[in-house]
Parts: sequence; structure tokens; C-alpha cells
Amino acid sequence: MMSNGEFRHEHDLLGDRDVPASAYYGIHTLRALENFPITGTPISVYPALIRALAEIKMAAARANHELGFLPLPKLEAIVSACEEIVAGKLHDQFVIDVIQGGAGTSTNMNANEVIANRALEIMGHEKGDYSRLHPNEDVNLSQSTNDVYPTALRLSTYADLGNLVEGMEYLRGVFEAKAEEFKDILKMGRTQLQDAVPMTLGQEFSTYAVMLGEDVERVREAARLLCEINLGATAIGTGITTHPRYAERVRHHLARITGMPLITAPNLVEATQDCGSFVQLSGVLKRVAVKLSKVCNDLRLLSSGPRAGLGEINLPPMQAGSSIMPGKVNPVIPEVVNQIAFEVIGNDMTVTMAAEAGQLQLNAFEPIIAHSLGKSIAHLTRGCRVLADLCVSGITANEERLRKSVADSIGVVTALNPYIGYVNATEIAQLALVSGRGVSELVLEKGLLTAEQLAEILQPDVLTRPKLQPLLRSESGERRV
Amino acid sequence: MMSNGEFRHEHDLLGDRDVPASAYYGIHTLRALENFPITGTPISVYPALIRALAEIKMAAARANHELGFLPLPKLEAIVSACEEIVAGKLHDQFVIDVIQGGAGTSTNMNANEVIANRALEIMGHEKGDYSRLHPNEDVNLSQSTNDVYPTALRLSTYADLGNLVEGMEYLRGVFEAKAEEFKDILKMGRTQLQDAVPMTLGQEFSTYAVMLGEDVERVREAARLLCEINLGATAIGTGITTHPRYAERVRHHLARITGMPLITAPNLVEATQDCGSFVQLSGVLKRVAVKLSKVCNDLRLLSSGPRAGLGEINLPPMQAGSSIMPGKVNPVIPEVVNQIAFEVIGNDMTVTMAAEAGQLQLNAFEPIIAHSLGKSIAHLTRGCRVLADLCVSGITANEERLRKSVADSIGVVTALNPYIGYVNATEIAQLALVSGRGVSELVLEKGLLTAEQLAEILQPDVLTRPKLQPLLRSESGERRV
Amino acid sequence: MMSNGEFRHEHDLLGDRDVPASAYYGIHTLRALENFPITGTPISVYPALIRALAEIKMAAARANHELGFLPLPKLEAIVSACEEIVAGKLHDQFVIDVIQGGAGTSTNMNANEVIANRALEIMGHEKGDYSRLHPNEDVNLSQSTNDVYPTALRLSTYADLGNLVEGMEYLRGVFEAKAEEFKDILKMGRTQLQDAVPMTLGQEFSTYAVMLGEDVERVREAARLLCEINLGATAIGTGITTHPRYAERVRHHLARITGMPLITAPNLVEATQDCGSFVQLSGVLKRVAVKLSKVCNDLRLLSSGPRAGLGEINLPPMQAGSSIMPGKVNPVIPEVVNQIAFEVIGNDMTVTMAAEAGQLQLNAFEPIIAHSLGKSIAHLTRGCRVLADLCVSGITANEERLRKSVADSIGVVTALNPYIGYVNATEIAQLALVSGRGVSELVLEKGLLTAEQLAEILQPDVLTRPKLQPLLRSESGERRV
Amino acid sequence: MMSNGEFRHEHDLLGDRDVPASAYYGIHTLRALENFPITGTPISVYPALIRALAEIKMAAARANHELGFLPLPKLEAIVSACEEIVAGKLHDQFVIDVIQGGAGTSTNMNANEVIANRALEIMGHEKGDYSRLHPNEDVNLSQSTNDVYPTALRLSTYADLGNLVEGMEYLRGVFEAKAEEFKDILKMGRTQLQDAVPMTLGQEFSTYAVMLGEDVERVREAARLLCEINLGATAIGTGITTHPRYAERVRHHLARITGMPLITAPNLVEATQDCGSFVQLSGVLKRVAVKLSKVCNDLRLLSSGPRAGLGEINLPPMQAGSSIMPGKVNPVIPEVVNQIAFEVIGNDMTVTMAAEAGQLQLNAFEPIIAHSLGKSIAHLTRGCRVLADLCVSGITANEERLRKSVADSIGVVTALNPYIGYVNATEIAQLALVSGRGVSELVLEKGLLTAEQLAEILQPDVLTRPKLQPLLRSESGERRV
Repeated sequence: MMSNGEFRHEHDLLGDRDVPASAYYGIHTLRALENFPITGTPISVYPALIRALAEIKMAAARANHELGFLPLPKLEAIVSACEEIVAGKLHDQFVIDVIQGGAGTSTNMNANEVIANRALEIMGHEKGDYSRLHPNEDVNLSQSTNDVYPTALRLSTYADLGNLVEGMEYLRGVFEAKAEEFKDILKMGRTQLQDAVPMTLGQEFSTYAVMLGEDVERVREAARLLCEINLGATAIGTGITTHPRYAERVRHHLARITGMPLITAPNLVEATQDCGSFVQLSGVLKRVAVKLSKVCNDLRLLSSGPRAGLGEINLPPMQAGSSIMPGKVNPVIPEVVNQIAFEVIGNDMTVTMAAEAGQLQLNAFEPIIAHSLGKSIAHLTRGCRVLADLCVSGITANEERLRKSVADSIGVVTALNPYIGYVNATEIAQLALVSGRGVSELVLEKGLLTAEQLAEILQPDVLTRPKLQPLLRSESGERRV
Repeated sequence: MMSNGEFRHEHDLLGDRDVPASAYYGIHTLRALENFPITGTPISVYPALIRALAEIKMAAARANHELGFLPLPKLEAIVSACEEIVAGKLHDQFVIDVIQGGAGTSTNMNANEVIANRALEIMGHEKGDYSRLHPNEDVNLSQSTNDVYPTALRLSTYADLGNLVEGMEYLRGVFEAKAEEFKDILKMGRTQLQDAVPMTLGQEFSTYAVMLGEDVERVREAARLLCEINLGATAIGTGITTHPRYAERVRHHLARITGMPLITAPNLVEATQDCGSFVQLSGVLKRVAVKLSKVCNDLRLLSSGPRAGLGEINLPPMQAGSSIMPGKVNPVIPEVVNQIAFEVIGNDMTVTMAAEAGQLQLNAFEPIIAHSLGKSIAHLTRGCRVLADLCVSGITANEERLRKSVADSIGVVTALNPYIGYVNATEIAQLALVSGRGVSELVLEKGLLTAEQLAEILQPDVLTRPKLQPLLRSESGERRV
Repeated sequence: MMSNGEFRHEHDLLGDRDVPASAYYGIHTLRALENFPITGTPISVYPALIRALAEIKMAAARANHELGFLPLPKLEAIVSACEEIVAGKLHDQFVIDVIQGGAGTSTNMNANEVIANRALEIMGHEKGDYSRLHPNEDVNLSQSTNDVYPTALRLSTYADLGNLVEGMEYLRGVFEAKAEEFKDILKMGRTQLQDAVPMTLGQEFSTYAVMLGEDVERVREAARLLCEINLGATAIGTGITTHPRYAERVRHHLARITGMPLITAPNLVEATQDCGSFVQLSGVLKRVAVKLSKVCNDLRLLSSGPRAGLGEINLPPMQAGSSIMPGKVNPVIPEVVNQIAFEVIGNDMTVTMAAEAGQLQLNAFEPIIAHSLGKSIAHLTRGCRVLADLCVSGITANEERLRKSVADSIGVVTALNPYIGYVNATEIAQLALVSGRGVSELVLEKGLLTAEQLAEILQPDVLTRPKLQPLLRSESGERRV
Repeated sequence: MMSNGEFRHEHDLLGDRDVPASAYYGIHTLRALENFPITGTPISVYPALIRALAEIKMAAARANHELGFLPLPKLEAIVSACEEIVAGKLHDQFVIDVIQGGAGTSTNMNANEVIANRALEIMGHEKGDYSRLHPNEDVNLSQSTNDVYPTALRLSTYADLGNLVEGMEYLRGVFEAKAEEFKDILKMGRTQLQDAVPMTLGQEFSTYAVMLGEDVERVREAARLLCEINLGATAIGTGITTHPRYAERVRHHLARITGMPLITAPNLVEATQDCGSFVQLSGVLKRVAVKLSKVCNDLRLLSSGPRAGLGEINLPPMQAGSSIMPGKVNPVIPEVVNQIAFEVIGNDMTVTMAAEAGQLQLNAFEPIIAHSLGKSIAHLTRGCRVLADLCVSGITANEERLRKSVADSIGVVTALNPYIGYVNATEIAQLALVSGRGVSELVLEKGLLTAEQLAEILQPDVLTRPKLQPLLRSESGERRV
């Protein structure tokens, strides 16, 4: 290591390079920076990933020290450097592009170099003086990219999923509150976009809350799979270069540092090449996206209008909707969430392709898996918050219109089914459609039921839940009409 | 109902139609047959679906009878008809195309009609004499397509997944046996297709077994989600036309009939419109496909040759591989499994699109979800069996070649890392690559380790598991070299 | 070749097997039949593919004869056998599963064997007497699966695309007729599901015709790419075993037989491994699917109701829509086309995965590409016909409702923009929305325009096309109001 | 408009807001900024899109002036402001998130506001003084987001595709040079990863050049479709608020400004709702991705080793490949391009979903289409350059190893096919495989050919192109052997 003020010289198997003297990263990072000028977005855009790398390096240093491989001064310096990174410092030194070749090696090297150089400073040495503390021989001791990088990805994804679950729960709560608010508003339910049978607007909104609740469960299950790590696997899972007790010690320290219920994968060779838990998670994120998109489609449809649409609910106006059509207001919040959903579904395809392309003892394409999951989780999290705060919480109902749609409907005829039979009911429905007349009127006219019977059957409370009583049936179970 | 020998007349809201007198299906099925001439494949290609429909109708009939809505003679006739279908009879009467409009209504109508007409025969009446037992008023009593069809799909998918799990377990066992057989064969592991560090061929094959084992767990989890049914929901989940105790009774009977741990969804409105569990399952099937494809890619790569490839293993020859190249044998079994995997991944996209397209109280596109899942599960099941029996079980290893690849390798230098350090080791590796010489030879020549030390480190048993001992380290944890 | 009545013995590099004496296929087909029990669907489900194989074999035989490699009697027998197959005979002998390993080798072998055995019969020999005419040495002469199979796939796909284009043109014509029928019916256009500005229902329907017309152009372009074949490439494109003039001669004969404007790929090595034209075509089919699905979504939305929906148009009722809701009729035809579209989009993903998985000199996964394209084209073709005949041709408009929606609309205020300005117009729009009053009324009340001016601007003819006149502007270009 | 130094007040239909006094954007942009906090990436990340917006506004201003709607001083100020933006200024004022609701309205509003405020400054007024020049009434005159935004997207995509084509052509040239360099190096070709027949390494590399050349053609075709614009359509394609000659004039000016061969879509209603050309383009980009990925897979496979792989070629080392394995070098450049390909394939799915989700007269999801295409094109462009410069141009061949693989091969037996027949050749091949002996040796031993005949057939020049002569055939076309 030599330096001339502005730069210091570093060396690797390809030769010498000048690294900016102020940089905490080193020659490996520098080369990777030049090799991957793809998106312009550095990995520091995912702070949880940077923190996770530092946590792993800290845990490894502790395990190595315990096992007699890392002297105390090095341990202390490495731990201090890592703590700074966990606290949010030095993230600007993590400069590798999010799309990078090399299965995460450059990301791991970046971490090794930044930690080594910061630790050197802490020890009172100059950056680059690797004979005193080496990025690979000390910071990376007992490790390989192939166990560090996927473990870091698991840790950071787990943390990010925590935020997603919070966002989803928040949105669920907002839907629940709306369901309560709308619980007495009767409306027509629809199947296949055709008028079906009555329900309450509260029932409609409560389904969105229930859906989100189920999805939260699935996200939590998928997150649990991330707690199985492969630290100790090193290059291909055989644990080459590690002490027999290292895997357990590093897991212990990492669990303590992160508070996660970590376990070491039973078969490290398998765990090192397998992307199954990422594919599973991506599939679950796709599920969440599909549901959110469906909900947003419904909100846009129910609020269509103001005059030539369904006009059942009103979304809060958020911005002028048109540069040409005065007064137009559009459902821009559901629309942006739809687009997030489409992106997440595309990201899932990217994850699928990348996972399938793994070969033999490693999947070289984990960086694009990391980037795809990172985008999906971040955007879904923000989408849930935005949908809750800027849309759902301000929704109002056009009660009068909704009530009228039930009163005018042909669909209530279904409720008469058990009493007058499907065949009679079909005839009434057709007659109503052709004549434009009301179902009740026609039933009375035909003498199929009395006004009292009709009134009893057509109560809102009876229409919107299972309330059938065998009153109008004979003892043998036959209809009376 | 009238008939003229060859045909009988039936009536619906669109008018009259002639139905073949011998047909058990009726006018609704006839119309659907004409409306959906898409694939030419009838729904009977999924026998588990047909059986599930009959089981549901049977359970509903029992519940309806208990609650006083269905007289005993009708119950007995319906149950008898259903039992015949469960036993495999009358499946040729289920003629609707697998791709059909109408959210499964035609499939449910087909079941109602076949069961009604067979029950009529059993009761001693003629087919089509619906005044005595009606497809909608009796067979479909307390039901709607919107609870019957998704429930049938859950039942049949659950059954089919049982077969898939068996197939996967079978394949897993074959891989495990191979792993045991190959457990002492040393070879070079590879990351990013570049020589990495040694491992055993047994370790390589055991990963495939472990992967399959994990996937089986995920399939089982996804299957459990299918046990939540929405019978009692009727049209949109409000339970209109049903008795308050119907949902619980029908669940009880259906659980008894199928032996499945069925539960009724807590929110039937949500359950009726939600395709989440199908999306989840499809994502898990995609995961299985991704893994199987990766395994097959590996098998094809490891068996490449016979002379200009890796040539590490031999797949059993199954057929002549070329119409022009004499003696050529190709890895046709892994290739066919790769293609199944690509199909399953495509099917997942279809399921995703269909699920996202659901609107308001129903997803109208469940038939294509059913067809996509049906194909994926059936083909994966067959793919596992074929891969196990026609390929994996007959694989042999080219032991000599594998052992030599380790002896010649540069990658063993990694094992020396903890003793001579990453920097020295890098120098040795580069020298070996350029000179074509062996790593051990160069280490000895440089005096970095003694022959005894080298021999100890390079034992197969040490190379392929975590065996590092701090012997060569000083007490302070520093390397000695 | 020996036979014992029921069976004949055949031999290949794996040993001997009994083939049913009546079978025209031979040992290679038999093994493939056993190796690929995946879907149960034989390749004969694609008759155009079987015909194409026969046409290629015929063309190759003619070329081989011309070049002096195939004696006249063999030529005549092969040509006769192929002509029978082209005429639709013997298709039941093409029994290989549509999902098969081996890059189409089994399909090509199946063709070689059926043609050889039929030709043997024609020559007066027994089936299996390959010393007189050999499946590989004669029928497959100068050929390899790797040029025959992709060429057959191109020919058959080209033919099938002809049917698709006819179906699309037919549907386009039906939409055009409806556009003409509806050309004077004024309605509100919508953007983002919100009321926008007026248009005619004819304009709305004409867009569907135009979309289809553009898609037809894209399908035709994609079909043209299929006319570049690689016959003469043999195994990997180097043309090994072929005469220098063979490629040109076989192309000549095949062009004559098929009537297609075939050209030989300039670089046969590239052409043999490349699936680009299939990926391109699949992308175009996906485009068609996306558009058709969008059209069907619109039709379902516009016909929603009958009372609580948009109710702008009526689709012809095709079948009873519900097993429980009497009189309900659903848009089953658009729904089935939506599902076809979802399937096609999934198939495109399968094609993409398969194409990406090609390695070195060949893509081994063409059979699943063939199957995916085959399904997509067939189902889209049927979908277009069904949509045209069973839905679009019978659509009627609810004219009164449509006209009223324009009269009541706020959106017409946009038409006043150029005369009263965006700011004034926004104020009017907001006032109309809040008060429920009409735009014209408010404009007059505010004195922004005279009744005459308003009447002139709000003519249907002015509202639905670019008709702005600078009458109300000053000479400097400023608004007067 | 009022201001208090730090802020100025602006007003829209939702009320008043303070806008930073220094901002060129206004209240509509401000609201959108708050409404869409999704990715943190502003639209200015796509400079070609910002330039295109300015070019359109300039063209519209000229057309409006010609038609008498925009006075000269306004024209001049708008044109000056737009020219600044085209020159790269003020891009930091385009702050809307790339994922946004509202079909691009916010992007268009952002452009209107920035241009209006800059034009106001140029005219000597203060920012926000909209009574003198209004974002909607003047800058957006005769326009709607629904014609401006898709047109801008077409223009910017067209420009970006120019860069992509250059990158692809550059990579193609590098492959061609390598093909020339390697044109005399004989090697074994492989099909299905099994040894096939000989070829030259030059032939192998030339296929990559040809593939890219074909893809360039497809990209150009797709780009041509982008030249059809819908300016003049305004809100839904009816041209409401525009002068009859406006569409032609704005097209004229825009074609002059951009140099693109623009045409106005024949049916503007269709053009305004249709995303067909974006879906088509995305499909073509996917095709490019599939091919590039395949090429990179090949490069990684051919360079596998250094000792236990195919080792046919050497990629230039770009960085140390492992944090643990000394001396390891990995194919990081092909790996990063593989990942770009996976991303592009995922983006295509996003585009597909977004296009399918369009409803009635507009597709509200064009922003995510724009973002997906933008990423795909930019990353593919960089990927081509990186692959060319950092990988392909430095590839070297292991000639000796390649030559030896042919000499040792069994696959050359295919070349003997026409002379000794498929049956004899199969026997030779099997014998060679089992015995480990050479094909030539065995052929001579069996007396099937003379040494002279063999030597003639096995010349490299004969093996790698169609060179068959009928010398060894009888006049009747029969083999002599």
C-alpha cells in the first residue's frame, strides 16, 4: 500500500490500481464499479442490505475471535466499524451497481474493504494498510460471498418485510373502519358485472380487509423461511476453511445482534445453491399484488362517473385529472397502486428466470433477485400507505343511489327462489326485464306470495345473510307454491 | 318434458331445445357445448373434479334433507346418482370444454343435470321429467355455482396434490439412494461454472433430495389452504336462500365424505371472490418447476459429452438421439422435464392474469385457473415419476474422471487459505494457472507448508466438511505463515 | 426384421423390441411413446404439423433423386406415402406426446418410420423390411431432425396463421358492420372510467375493428419471418452429409409443394439454433391476446346491468347465467375469450423460457414451443369466430340511455374550453357537480355564452370531431370571454 | 398569483397551495409530487422524454399560432422555453415520480407548468402570473395529456432505440471480428449438450453476429411503428377543442423539429386508447434479451474451467472472482448481461399487464409502460456495450484443446453416413464409445473405407460445409458399401 495524497495504490490478481485516498472501498470495489455501469443505482439504495452485511461481519468476527482465529484488537476494530455502518454511516461507500455480475462477490468485497479500511483508521493505521488488517483474511475470515451475500439478503428482506406487513396492516385497518362505517348501507352485489343479489357496502369493504389479513399471514410465513441461513457454508456449502464449531457460533452471534430466530440450514450444500425461499416470497408478493390490483380495480369501478358511471362511492379528489377536461377528477391513487402491482408481477418473472438459471453449486444471479425483491417490497409498502391515507380513508358512499339500485333490482328475485321455485322465479325475472316493472309487483300480481310474506323475505337483514326458514315448506320438504 | 325417441325437449329462459334422449346432461349443458368450442377437451379430463362435484351434491342433499328441504326419496336418488359418479361412472356426460365462460356455471349445471337425470332414472322416471326432481330446485338446492365450483376445485386440487406429493417423494427417495451410492466419490464443485472447491458426488445428489423435500413441505402448506371452503355462500357470500345452519351441515357431510379437514371460511363474501389460495398454490408449483428445471439443467450439464463435455455422470440411454448422427444419445428425460417446467411457469402467468381480472363479488375466470392448475399438477406428477424411473435411478458416475479433476485442480488452494493466507494463496493459484503445474508442488517449492501439513489438509474428509483446526495458528489468532 | 403375426421385431442401438405388426411406426417411435407419458395428447392433434413433415420428406426425396442419391422406385414410393399423409391419412400413426424430450427427434423419427413402412407396402414389401427402404438412410436422407423439425414447425405455423388471420378479419368485419350500425348514436366517452367527452357508439366500435386490422398486419409480418427455413443445415447447420446443391433443390421443391415463398437462411448454423422467429411470433400473439382481452373487458363493462350497471349495450343472451339467480344472463362469450387471452399470455412465457434455454448449436426445447404456439393459434382462431358469431353480431344499443348520458353530462364543458377558457370551465364543472345542475344552464346563467353560441358548439357533429372555428377568438388569438 | 418571497400561491380546483418561489413547476406538479411517493426516481431520469415533451409543446405552439389561436409574443416565449429544455436545461424541474397515477397527466402538467413559468420569465413577468400565459390555456392549447403523453413516449422511445441499435451493431461488429479471427479453428459442435459434428469456432461466433443483425432488423421495424402519433386526438380521439387543420399542422412542425418520419394515425380514437406498438416493442426487446441471454449462457459454458470445464475459450479476467477462493476468476460480464435479460423479460410482463388493463377510451397505465420500456432499453444498450468492450473483444481460444476434441470425437462418424450408411455408422459409434477407440481406426479395421477415402472425407473443409459428392454411390443412387 502506497499513497500519493489523492490516491493510494492497491493490488489484486489483475495488477495495480489507484484508489481515491479518501475512499473506504478498495481495488475490488473499484473494478466492479467500472465493470457494471448498468443502472446508475448503487446498492446503498437498500440500506437494510448494507446494515445486514455489517451485522454479519460483526457476528463472524466474534465467532472467529472465540475460536481463536481473530485477535482482540482486530475484533474490536472490526466491530466498531460495523457498528458505525449499522448506525447508518459510510453507506455512501457502498457504490456497486444493483445489477452486477458475480453472484454478489462485489457487494461482499465492497463490505470487506469498507469495514477493513474503517477498522484500520480506528486502529490508528492508514486506509489501505492491509498487512495490519486484511479485507479478505480478517474481515472475510471463515466466510465466502456464497454464504455472506444470501444471508445478508435474507436479513435485509426480513427487515423490509416487517415494514410491508405494517403497511398492509395499516391499510387493513382503514378498510375495516370503512366496513364498519358502511355496514348498514344496502346495495346490489354483482357477479360477472351483472346485477346479482343484495349485500351491504360494509360487506363489500370488509372483504378487502379480510383479503389483506390473509395476505399478511402468507407474507409472515414466507418471512419465516428467510430465517434459515447458510453461514458456515463458505464457497459451496462444504464449510471448507471453517472450524467445525464456526457455523453454530456465527449463527448464535447473528441471532443476538439481529433479534431474528435464525437457524442454520441442515444441508449447507443445498442451502448455498437454493433460491427456493426467494421464489416462494416473490410468489407471495405477486399474490399480494394481484389482490391489491383487484381491490383498486373495484374502487375505480365503483367510483366511476360522476354521472355516466356506477357512482356508488366517491374517492377523495387528489389532483386535477386532466389538462384539457375542466373539473375532471380521476382515481389516481388506485391507478398508481395498479401500476405497482403490474411491476411486482413483472419482478416475479425476473426472479423466476434468475432462480431457474442457477447452475450446480451456486446461483450466480442473486443480485437481480435481490434488486427485484427490493423494489417489490418497497413499492408495495409505499403503495399500501398511499392507498390507505390518500384514498380509502376518505371514501364516501352515495347511499341514496345504492338503496335505489336494490329497490329497482330484478336480482332480489333470487331471495324468492326457495319459496316460489327457480322456474317460477325465472319467469318473473324475464317479465320484469322486458316490462321494466318491479319484481314485487309481479309476484303479487301472480299471487305467488302475499304482501306479508314478501315483506318478510325482503327485509335487508334477511337479504344479506343466511336467514331462510322452512316456513313456506311442507313437512315433506316440498315447496308449497 | 316431451320426447320423440331420439330426442327429448327441454326448456330454459332462452326457449326450447332438443336434447339427445340418451344424454344425461340437459339443455343448459347443450347450450354451453355450443357456446364454447375452444379446445375440444372436455372437463372429464379432470376426473377428480367430476368426483368432487358429485361429493358436494351429495353433501348438500344430506344437509338439505336434515334441514327439512329435501324429501327422503329425492335424497336417496340423488345420493345414489352421486355415488355412481364418484365410482367413475357417467364421466362421459361431463362434456363442457375446459375453457368456458361463465365462472363455472356450465360445469355446475352439467353436474346438476346429469345427477338429476340419473336420479330420475333411479326413481323410475324418465330423463327430463324435471317436475319430479329438478336440476336447480333439488340437486342445486341451497347452492350456487359460486360456492359449488370453487369448492369442487379445491377438493379436486387437494386430491391431485396428493399424487404430486407422492411423485415428488418418490423422486426424492431415488435421489437419496443415489446420494448414498455416490457418497465417497470426490469431485470438484463449481460456482459460476468455474472450478471451485472439492465435494463429493453424493453431496451434489443429496442437495436434489433436500430441495425436493423442502418443496414437498411448501406443497403441503399450499394444500392446507385449500381446505377452507365457501359452501353456504351461494351467489355472493351472503348465504341468500340458505338456512342458517346449512353451511355448517354441508361442511360436516362433505368432510365426512372426503376425509378432508374442511373448514368454512369465516367471511364467505371474501371467500367467494378470492382466488388467493390458487395464486399461492400456482406460485408454489412454479417454485417446484424452477427447482426441477435447475436439477435437470445440472444433470444435462454433468452428463455432457461423451468426449467433449464434462462427462462426470452417465444418464441411462433411453432412445437413439439423432436421425442423422449415429450412436448419439441425448438426455431426453431431463429435457422433457425442463419443458414441463417451462409450461408450469407459463401456466402460473395465466393463473395470475385470471386472478387479477376478478371483479367485485366474483372471479369469472376460475375455469382457466382450474385448467392451468390441472395441467401443471398432472404434468409435474408425471415428470417426477419419469425422471425418477427413466433417468435418475440409472445414473452412473465416471469416478476416475471425477477424482482426477480434483487432483489436477487449482481450486484446492482454497483449503490452504487459513494456513497460508488469501494473498499467498492467490499467488500460488495464478502461478498454477499460468504454468500448468500443480498446487501442492508449488506450495512445497515455496516452502509455505510441509508435505505432512499438506497431506493432512488435503484429505477428502477434510476438504468436504468444516474441519479447520487452529493448529497452524498462533495463540493470538494470527496465521503462522 | 422378423414378425410373428401380432408383432414384428425391430432393432436399434439399445437392442430389440417388438412393434405391433399393424403399426406403421417403428422402434424409435415405440421407445419415445414409453419415454414421454406426459400429456396423453399425441402430435397428431396438430394435423398441419403432420402434413408439413410429409411435404418436407417429399421435397427431400425429390432433391435426393435429382442429385443421384435416391433411385426412382424409392422416390415414387416415398412420394406416394407422403401424399397420403398430406391427404389426411395415417395421422393416427403419429403418436408421440406433444411434450417430448429430444428436440423433435422422436417426431421426425415417427415420420421417417411411418413413411418408410407405408412406402414399403406400396413397393410390395412388408412393413419393417428396412433393408429395402430405410427410415433413416432413405426417408431421412440429407436431413437431420434439426433442420426437418423446425422447418415443419414453420410450415405448419404458417398454415395455421392463415386460419387465424381469416378469423381475425372475420371478427374485424363484424365490428365494422356494428360501427356503421351505431354511427349516429351519441354517448359519453370515458377515460380512467370517469366521464370524459362525447363520442358516437360507432366510433367506439370502429376502434375495435381498427385494432384488429393492425394486429392482422403484425401477424402477417411475423408469418413472413417463418418463410426462412434451414433445410440443408442437417445436424448443426454446417450441412454435413449433404450435397452442395441440396439446400437449394429441397427449398425449390418444398416451395412448389407448399406454395409458400420459402427462402433458405443465409447462415444455416445460426438458423439451426435460433428460435427468434418463434419468440417474435409469440410476442405478436400475445399482443393480439392483450387487445382481444381489452375489447372483451370493454364489452362486459358496457353491457353491465341490467339495472345497476352501465347498461349501454346488450349482448345476445347465450345461456342461463346462474344455477341460483333466476333470469340472470352473463357475458359468457367475452369471458371465454378473456380466458383464451390469459392462456396465450402464459404460453408466451413458456415460449420465452424455452427459447432462452437453448444451448450452443441447438435449442432442445422446440417441442414445447410448438405446443405452446399451436394452442395459442388454435384457441385465438376459435375465440375470434365465437366472439364474432355468438356475441358481437348480435349486440344492440340502449340508445335512449346513451343519449341521456350526454345530455346530463358535465363532460361537455370541455367543448367550451376554447371559448370560455379552462379556468372558467373548471368553475362551471365544479358548480355542476355540487349542485346537480346542467352545464348549459350554468353557462347561460353566468352569461359566458349566448344560447345560440352554446347550441352551435354542442351539436353532435361538432362534439365528436375536430370542428373548432376561431370565431370566438380575437384577431390576436386571444379568447374573447 | 401572489407570493411572499419564499413561496408563491397557486390555485386549482382543490384549493390553494404554496409553491416554492424558485420552482418552475406549479400547483399541479406539487400535488402529484405528494400523491406519488413511490420510487423516489423522478421522470427526469429519462431525458429523452423531457426533450420530447418540449418538442411537442413547441410544435403545438407553432400550429396554434398559424391557426390564429396563439399570439406571437406567447409563441416566441413558449418556443424559447422549450428550446432551453431541449438543450438540457430545467430538467431538474421535472420531479414527478416515474410510477404515477393519472395516465401521464401529471407529467404533462409538469411540462405545461415549467414551460409556462419559464416563458413568463422570458416575457419579463413573474413565475405564476398565469393571467399573462397559462399552462393549460396556452401551453397545452389544442392538446390533452392523452395525445401529448403517448406521443412524447413514442418520440423518446424512438430516440432511445437509436442508441440501442448502435449498441447492438457495435456488439455485432465485435462478434464478427472474432468470427473472422477464429475462422480456421476446428472444434466439436454440440446439440443437446452432447457431442455432435465438427464446425469452426468462427462459425460458432458468426452465429452471434447474425443473431444480433436479425434482432436489429426487428428493433427497427418496431421503431417504425412508433412514428404513428395521435396529436390532435385530444381527450379521447375525437379531436374536441381542435381546429380541423390542427392535427396536420402539429404533425408537420413536430416532424420538422424531430426529423422523424411522423404520420398521424388514421383513426385517432383507436390510436388514443391503443398500446399495441408498445406491447409489440416490448416483445421485440424480450426477443433481444432472450438471444443475448442465450449468447451469454454459451460464453459462460464454453469458458468453463479452467481445468474441470469445457475450457474452449478464455474470457478476459475483469476482477477477482471470490472473496475466499484465491485466483478464481468468474464470467462476471456475461453474468451481468444475463441479469439484464431477466429484468427485460420481467418488464415485458409488466407492459403486458398494463396494456391489458386499459379500459374504454384510454389506457391509464402508460406511465408504468414508459418506465418499463425505459429501463429495458437503457439497460440493454449498456449491456451490449459492456459485453462488447469488457468481454467479447478480449476472448481468446484454446486452439489445441479444440482441435484435439475433434480428433478424439465419435461425432465425426456422421460424416461417413452417406458412404457407409446409418446402420453401419451406428455400430462403429457404439464400438468407439465402449472401447474408447477412435472412429477412423475402427472404420479401417472393418474395411468399410480405405485410408484415402477416409482422409478425403475428414478434411476440415469438408466436415464444416456441404461438400458431399456422389462419388461413392452407384449410378442408381445406392450406397456402394
